[in-house]
Amino acid sequence: MNQEKLRKYRPYPQVPLQDRRWPDQMITRAPIWCSVDLRDGNQALIQPMNVEEKLEMFQLLVQIGFKEIEVGFPSASQIEYDFLRLLIEGNHIPTGVVPQVLTQAREHLIKRSFASIQGAREAIMHLYNSTSILQRDVVFKKDKKEIIELGVTGAKLIREQAERAETIIRYEYSPESFTGTELDFSLEICEAVMDVWEPSPEKPMIINLPATVEMSTPNIYADQIEWFCRHVKNRDCVLISVHAHNDRGEAVAATELALMAGADRVEGTLFGNGERTGNVDIVTLALNMFSQGVDPELDFSRINKVINVYERCTKMKVHPRHPYAGELVYTAFSGSHQDAINKGMTALELTQSGLWEVPYLPIDPQDVGRTYESIIRINSQSGKGGIAYIMEHEFGFKLPNDMRPGFGRVIQEVSDACSDELSPEMIFQTFEKEYLFNVNGYALKSFNVIKRHFDRDEEQSIAEIEAVVVTKGGEQSIRASGNGPLDAFCTALRDGLGLRFVLHSYHEHALTRGSSAKAVSYIEILDQDNEGWWGAGVDTDIIVASIKSLLSALNRSAAKAKGQH
Amino acid sequence: MNQEKLRKYRPYPQVPLQDRRWPDQMITRAPIWCSVDLRDGNQALIQPMNVEEKLEMFQLLVQIGFKEIEVGFPSASQIEYDFLRLLIEGNHIPTGVVPQVLTQAREHLIKRSFASIQGAREAIMHLYNSTSILQRDVVFKKDKKEIIELGVTGAKLIREQAERAETIIRYEYSPESFTGTELDFSLEICEAVMDVWEPSPEKPMIINLPATVEMSTPNIYADQIEWFCRHVKNRDCVLISVHAHNDRGEAVAATELALMAGADRVEGTLFGNGERTGNVDIVTLALNMFSQGVDPELDFSRINKVINVYERCTKMKVHPRHPYAGELVYTAFSGSHQDAINKGMTALELTQSGLWEVPYLPIDPQDVGRTYESIIRINSQSGKGGIAYIMEHEFGFKLPNDMRPGFGRVIQEVSDACSDELSPEMIFQTFEKEYLFNVNGYALKSFNVIKRHFDRDEEQSIAEIEAVVVTKGGEQSIRASGNGPLDAFCTALRDGLGLRFVLHSYHEHALTRGSSAKAVSYIEILDQDNEGWWGAGVDTDIIVASIKSLLSALNRSAAKAKGQH
Repeated sequence: MNQEKLRKYRPYPQVPLQDRRWPDQMITRAPIWCSVDLRDGNQALIQPMNVEEKLEMFQLLVQIGFKEIEVGFPSASQIEYDFLRLLIEGNHIPTGVVPQVLTQAREHLIKRSFASIQGAREAIMHLYNSTSILQRDVVFKKDKKEIIELGVTGAKLIREQAERAETIIRYEYSPESFTGTELDFSLEICEAVMDVWEPSPEKPMIINLPATVEMSTPNIYADQIEWFCRHVKNRDCVLISVHAHNDRGEAVAATELALMAGADRVEGTLFGNGERTGNVDIVTLALNMFSQGVDPELDFSRINKVINVYERCTKMKVHPRHPYAGELVYTAFSGSHQDAINKGMTALELTQSGLWEVPYLPIDPQDVGRTYESIIRINSQSGKGGIAYIMEHEFGFKLPNDMRPGFGRVIQEVSDACSDELSPEMIFQTFEKEYLFNVNGYALKSFNVIKRHFDRDEEQSIAEIEAVVVTKGGEQSIRASGNGPLDAFCTALRDGLGLRFVLHSYHEHALTRGSSAKAVSYIEILDQDNEGWWGAGVDTDIIVASIKSLLSALNRSAAKAKGQH
Repeated sequence: MNQEKLRKYRPYPQVPLQDRRWPDQMITRAPIWCSVDLRDGNQALIQPMNVEEKLEMFQLLVQIGFKEIEVGFPSASQIEYDFLRLLIEGNHIPTGVVPQVLTQAREHLIKRSFASIQGAREAIMHLYNSTSILQRDVVFKKDKKEIIELGVTGAKLIREQAERAETIIRYEYSPESFTGTELDFSLEICEAVMDVWEPSPEKPMIINLPATVEMSTPNIYADQIEWFCRHVKNRDCVLISVHAHNDRGEAVAATELALMAGADRVEGTLFGNGERTGNVDIVTLALNMFSQGVDPELDFSRINKVINVYERCTKMKVHPRHPYAGELVYTAFSGSHQDAINKGMTALELTQSGLWEVPYLPIDPQDVGRTYESIIRINSQSGKGGIAYIMEHEFGFKLPNDMRPGFGRVIQEVSDACSDELSPEMIFQTFEKEYLFNVNGYALKSFNVIKRHFDRDEEQSIAEIEAVVVTKGGEQSIRASGNGPLDAFCTALRDGLGLRFVLHSYHEHALTRGSSAKAVSYIEILDQDNEGWWGAGVDTDIIVASIKSLLSALNRSAAKAKGQH
């Protein structure tokens, strides 16, 4: 970027904080959560929510477990006033859930705000005025004393109204644009408001310190919060609340570090909806805690429902890479990741340690109501591990280890050619075409075991078979005996059709999915050049499955000899 | 979330770091940037890029200013191999730009990797193996010694090849899944690889410490990086590189704190594309630096072009709230924000301080090639300030301050009714309907100034006018004189039509946009109840504009009297 543009900007100042303590702290319990989806979130929508959508969103927030919900700015908007009346008069606010309303420090707005909450058992009255240097100079044209006066006057008006109200009022004050305000001035105005509201440990007031605009690395916000917590008088009479915006993409980090620095309460929204880059995302914050074994006291165990309601009400989309929620976040496309996930899932079943330990998956998708189905997805970057995973988990085919590289190459060719994601169905179709239905050469027309005999004395089985095989040149009957039906069939192929091959490896298992009465057989032969070829066959009769599997291997081998591979 | 699920997770361990220094540092210069868009980014796409798209992306990265670009995993994919050959043989790599290729520690893969870069002037050979406890146990089933052996063997093979190659080779080693690895073991394996590669201050090697999965608050990643920087031998012979993923939504923060902790180099992608939640977003990192007056040494001054190429090549979308780039991030819908922005922009013009200081806008949108047009957008949450901004900046109408609240109420009613965003055009149409074309009552048919006289001795102007006004009852001719045409017209209305009003306030200005020969007049009258009513009128003749404006005010007043307002 050019130098002239650079000169327009200055570094954000550091906080003079000796012996900061927050970097040694950990988050060990959930904060008080306050949703501002219906205020900060709603006001930033191209199409703000209508009454039905607001009600649906409110009910969702209650179900998730929010106990404090900022409902809007009722004195500034008739719609928000009406919605509050609907919530209260329609009895939509359950016991234990407290609505919060935002108001500026002006008498008629404060009176209207109190009118809006009439009939509620309890409410948070949230007073703010902007305190930043820039807003003082440019927007309000008031000096520090006048700005304090504004806040104090508002606080007095609120206290007067609160003492007359039947609703139990909790107080909240925000020095708006806190991150653009001198720290000591923020403290001064907050303490001036405290003097009016006289909070106690039993009835603390909320001091909300918003990063109205995110202006610095998140450690500085944490420094500010720690500085404030250590300097504010009567710390036990205030709940320190944080309210981060995401202008630098660091709202989640700023909030977590602020919690380590002593904050008690977090205001934010689902999926970070809010002005400009949005508010801090409470879904991510809560599931970050969850992933460390800390109970977030919010329930995101059905995240798809939360996404659905959110997207319908806000008309915003959750990004496919959104932590914990996006379509792609539990998905691995890369071959080595898929392989590791595959092995990790298997190890998890074996060890039964009770701990979630799977490479590349920070939490168990099932804990938020997602399935394992989309963990492994196949594109041209994927490998045999992922393909084997899909064959097993989607279709019940446990491919032998040695068979996987060959099928991996087949899939790679298909996906290189179409340069798009391969759905599980496409992978299975490729498997069918390449192995199960590969009758391009020999196909079985009929097969009979004529005699099967076990001689206990000689410890020997004898089987005699006859079969009709369809070849390029027409149908051919073959017949032979061996130590079992497959052995006999091999001999018949060698003697009757002149084929040269060695049976190298044999696997079979029942198919757990699909028609469960069927079995699958995987056979590897070595051709005349000692090259290995895998085949596979499915049948209700395991013998027939193995015959089909052998023919599949022979056909693949022959196709290669003809340069078709 | 339920308790049973919680027991599956443990807190991430802290780093035993006494006297950490990074919280006192600031970012004062750009790191070495390495784009992994064509590797980590591409491998995580539902539809990976084809060759044309890769080439377009590569050229974009070069234009932005990346000097190191990881091109892929050529030994694992024919497509990536071919693409490297195309870059080299087609002379697409400018001097000073170094391609980087990733390889696992296996001989045939390393040889193929070297084949892929043949003919390049210089290249970074990036060796990795996974070192985490989980991957050692579950995926590789190797102990620490064997894992070190794997890395060292790979390093030796690479050195052998490098010494034979004509290409200048820089070395990079990643203990993959670093954040899941014991810190001291990461150090041990990195130093073992150093022993093979023998880097020097003149020819340092890159040690890349990836948060392959983001597992902790970002301060812990910073602690790990600081610990590593302070413990690694021959610190001046290594470039410490960070490579953060975004599983907890904190990759930007983790990277910034890691830079404060001593990292020299950053691997990431445009807009954070990459596996699962993505890699760290280099656009945000760079513009975060820029916003602090630090030259990021990457050029995002045409961000819309970057977005277009990115979206076309990756088929991913940039989220509307994505920092610095999203559609909505320079937009304010809230009335108080709009008002503050409006005042801030005006103050900026007046002060000429050279510093960017506008409330709610961390950077000047024009610095990334965005316009001011969409800064203010109007929904039912917006206020008069934003509306005034749009009327002025989109249409050239500078509404008088006292006129704004009234028009604000008109707009609020419209936007409440349609509960959607109002486009600037809809706002202007509402203005036209309410003011300019409000002839629902009186309309001017003709207007003549019969006499206009200035008497220098008496210091007095005299104007005599006649006009035909269309009323509900038909056309009426009126005639009067006054100290100017408007005064005369007022008298004519009072005397001829019996109207009762006082002319209270008068503003006019030339229209800078649209047909520039026109002028607009804004007039406020007080009605019989002393209530103020604003009107507006446009004409090439400023006198006629003022007559229209007066009639507009009278018509609005009359509509209210009839209860139409």
